[in-house]
Formats: sequence, C-alpha cells, structure tokens
Amino acid sequence: MEKAMKENRLSSILFIVLFLCGSTSMAHKPFRHRPQPCNHLVFYFHDVIYNGKNAGNATSAIVAAPSWGNHTILSRLNHFGDMVVFDDPITLDNNLHSPPVGRAQGMYFYDKKEIFTAWVAFSFVFNSTKHKGTINFAGADPLMNKTRDISVIGGTGDFFMARGIATLSTDAFEGEVYFRLRVDINLYECY
Amino acid sequence: MEKAMKENRLSSILFIVLFLCGSTSMAHKPFRHRPQPCNHLVFYFHDVIYNGKNAGNATSAIVAAPSWGNHTILSRLNHFGDMVVFDDPITLDNNLHSPPVGRAQGMYFYDKKEIFTAWVAFSFVFNSTKHKGTINFAGADPLMNKTRDISVIGGTGDFFMARGIATLSTDAFEGEVYFRLRVDINLYECY
Amino acid sequence: MEKAMKENRLSSILFIVLFLCGSTSMAHKPFRHRPQPCNHLVFYFHDVIYNGKNAGNATSAIVAAPSWGNHTILSRLNHFGDMVVFDDPITLDNNLHSPPVGRAQGMYFYDKKEIFTAWVAFSFVFNSTKHKGTINFAGADPLMNKTRDISVIGGTGDFFMARGIATLSTDAFEGEVYFRLRVDINLYECY
Repeated sequence: MEKAMKENRLSSILFIVLFLCGSTSMAHKPFRHRPQPCNHLVFYFHDVIYNGKNAGNATSAIVAAPSWGNHTILSRLNHFGDMVVFDDPITLDNNLHSPPVGRAQGMYFYDKKEIFTAWVAFSFVFNSTKHKGTINFAGADPLMNKTRDISVIGGTGDFFMARGIATLSTDAFEGEVYFRLRVDINLYECY
Repeated sequence: MEKAMKENRLSSILFIVLFLCGSTSMAHKPFRHRPQPCNHLVFYFHDVIYNGKNAGNATSAIVAAPSWGNHTILSRLNHFGDMVVFDDPITLDNNLHSPPVGRAQGMYFYDKKEIFTAWVAFSFVFNSTKHKGTINFAGADPLMNKTRDISVIGGTGDFFMARGIATLSTDAFEGEVYFRLRVDINLYECY
Repeated sequence: MEKAMKENRLSSILFIVLFLCGSTSMAHKPFRHRPQPCNHLVFYFHDVIYNGKNAGNATSAIVAAPSWGNHTILSRLNHFGDMVVFDDPITLDNNLHSPPVGRAQGMYFYDKKEIFTAWVAFSFVFNSTKHKGTINFAGADPLMNKTRDISVIGGTGDFFMARGIATLSTDAFEGEVYFRLRVDINLYECY
C-alpha cells in the first residue's frame, strides 16, 4: 500500500516536471500575451531633403522617381515612386542641433498614389562610448498615422542579433524639406 | 536491496527528465526535422505596371533603370536593373476584382541579364476586422521557377515578431502589364 | 526519519530539475556571453560595375542616382545616392575565375557625402549539390572599415530560417570597376 502511494507520488512529480518542461519547450510557439521588451531605446532622427538649393544642409536626396517625376522636386500623386537615400543625424532629443549620437542611413520611397505612405529600410549606426553597433529596420511607414510600427530585422555589435518593433512618429514636418521622426525601439530578442 | 532499486529508479527518472529538459534547451540549436508552422496564410496580390497608357489602373511604376533603360518600358536584357515600386491589392482568391483585404507595398527589381529574376522587399499591410498589422518580406524571387521561397523578416500587430517562409508562385502573367502572385505564408515563430 | 529524508531527497531532485528547466525557459532572454555559431561559412563575391564600355563582363549597373549624377559614372560626393543592382558570382576562394558556387543578387547604394559608405540588401542564391537555398542579408556597409557586420535576416532551403551576422571585408578593389568582398557568415539560429 505504502509502496503504491510512493509510486503514485513519484508519478505525480514526474508528471508535473514533464508538464513544466513541456510548456518550456513550447515557449517558441504561439502564446497569448505580449512579452516584456528586453531593451527599450528612444531616438530622434532628422531628414533634410535636397531640393536643388540646399546642398550644404541636405542629408538626403531623391535618387529614383517615376516617369512623371524628377530628382529635385518630390513628384505629384503623393510622391508615388520617389525614392530617397539618406544619411541623417540621430539625436537623443528633438533638437536638430543636439550632438548626434549616430547616423540613420538607408532609404525610403513613397508608394501610394492616393495618400502619403512610404516604405523604409535603414540602419541606425552607432560608434560612441555609449553604443557601438547597428540596428537594422524595415517595414511599411503609413506616415499620416500618428504612430506606425516597423520591424527590427537584426542588429550587430551592442545590438547583436536584436529583433523587435520600432514605433515611428512624426515629431515635426516642415514643408517638403525637413522632417523629424521619433523612434521608440522595443527589442524582444536580446543576446 | 530494495533501497538500491529505489535509488536506481530515482536515477532513471532523473535521467529521463534531464534528458527531456536537455533536449528542450537545445531547441534553438540545429535540429534535423522542419518544425510545424504556427500559422499558415494564403493570399494573392495583383500588380498592374504603368506603361504610359494605364495611369488609372496602374498599381506600380518603374522608378529606376540602368543607363540603357527608361521608366515607361521594361528594358532589354531581361529588364536587368529595372526597379518597380508597387501598391498592390491583396485578395483572398485569384480574382483581381475580389474585395481587397489589404495592400502589398514595396518594391522589386530585376537583377539578372540572362533570365528573368527579381529581388523583392515589401510588406503586407492589413487593416480589417480580420487582420490588423503588417508582415514584412525580403528575398530573391527567381520568377521563372514554379515556386520560390522568400523570408518573412518580421511583423507587427497581429503578426507581432513573426518569422517564417513565404512561397511565391506566379498565378497569372499577362504580357508586361499584369501579374498575379499567390503567396503561401508559413510562420515558424509566432507570439 | 527515513521517510523525511526520502521526501527531502525528492524535493531536492525536484528543485534541481525545475531549476534546470527554468534556466532553459530563459534561454531567449538577455544573456551575457555571445553564443557559439551553429554554422560558419566563408564565401567571396565579385562585382564588375558597368561603366559604358564593359557590357560583356559587367555584373552590376547603376540604376538610380541623385540629380547631379548619371547611370554610367559613379557620381561625385563619394557616390552619395548612387544605387547599384548586381548579380555577382560567388566563389569559395578569392579568384574571380574559380567556378561559381552561387550568385549574390541584390542592391547597394552609397549613402554618405563625406566618405564612402553603403547600405546593402541582397541574397546568396545557391543551387548546387552542396547547398540549395538562399541566405538573405541587410545592413550598413561602411566600406572603408576593414570589417563590417551586417545582419542575416533570413534564409530558405538548406538555410531555412537562418539568422546571424555576416562580416564583410573588401578583399580587392580596382578603381571604380571591380571589387571583391569576403563574407564570413556566422549563423546563431539554425533549424
């Protein structure tokens, strides 16, 4: 009798343990709650688009356009097809003249005729005492929305193998020459 | 004697459990079998390329081309270097006129002189009661192959942190004006 | 007394086992040491840029440029804004004439006015007895640095769901017509 109970008890323990291990092995499968980010960072970056007259200040330029566009003026139809390459300063606050802590380098293109919408692919490149390495981003940027989420598709250096979500918001927009984006980065895979 | 057996039994259980836990902890290391997808989705999207005469219907346009090309007609040498920006309707079946459930937004470019081959980077953008969020894709698209696999490099909203494989197949191709792709999405990382 | 000891022993085992399972479940959370790669690969690829006179040999061509550039000659200001589409042979050693084991297909663009810096997005496409499938890359390429890290953002076929870091180094550079990159690929997620 006592032996049976002991065996029972052993079975129960084994069951619990296996259950716990089992649920661990599912960790990569769907689960219902959003995990907590393992890193959170906030930056701003500043884009000054070349318009034929601001060569000294410009940090970006149109490099491709549809047949009805050109490379100096953003085209009609909500700039559909205009592609811009940029090398923008990153700052910790929303002041263009704050000391840059890195560069946002990459491209975006407008991709809808009816409203302003863009698609972006770029890197944050850091080489300071605080951060060394890069964070790589890609995704749709429906820029008329207050916030929009893009993917952190990878990282190097301090951000080795990072994955996560970056939430973009337009912090300032001045005609077709200057805009400033706030980037809230939440990493969910950190090494 | 009985005690030794019990210890033996305990050791065996411990061994089995640790083995199971151990194999769990390796889950991220190489393993031999493909995992089951945690989500499977099928969509179609429809690309109508601007050719100088279809401004009303066109969903895409050439925005970049090599020196021997232009932005209205796909260039010779299998369109090598032609880059196209698109905003294409996504449907659940292969009918261009079905109600769109989202937009495929991004770009592709032809990148081989000898045969038709492209490279793609785009997002599926959903904003319906069924799906909210984006899925981001990138990869080589050797479009003469019946099927070709590209990477799901990230997702947002309902597709938060998604990773997986999308299998593209050309469902229709009409001259150099219209094509329709079927996209079989298998996600292997879901949150 | 003996019973209490047994219970104690059981509790200890349970504690150890749960501890081990527990640490397993944290495997995806931040940890302090870099993991060992689950795969390491080294390749070279060779880029011959079209310059108006080498149509037969060229493996790449300028397809986009800022308003001050053109599509035959890399522009001034460190080629800022020039975008190049390529289909380059991949070899196992640094000899352009070695039998190619695959193709590097994608694009890069120069994105800084003050120095040479680029941003790259491309795939390695393999279809040999040794390797079948693709590896997809994206990231900043500050090409004046001896080595620079970009992200492996995904893979297909033999490289199903791959993630990792690729370290680029310029192995040769001949004027503005030819360069050869060495690519050290370290994968940290393998299936």
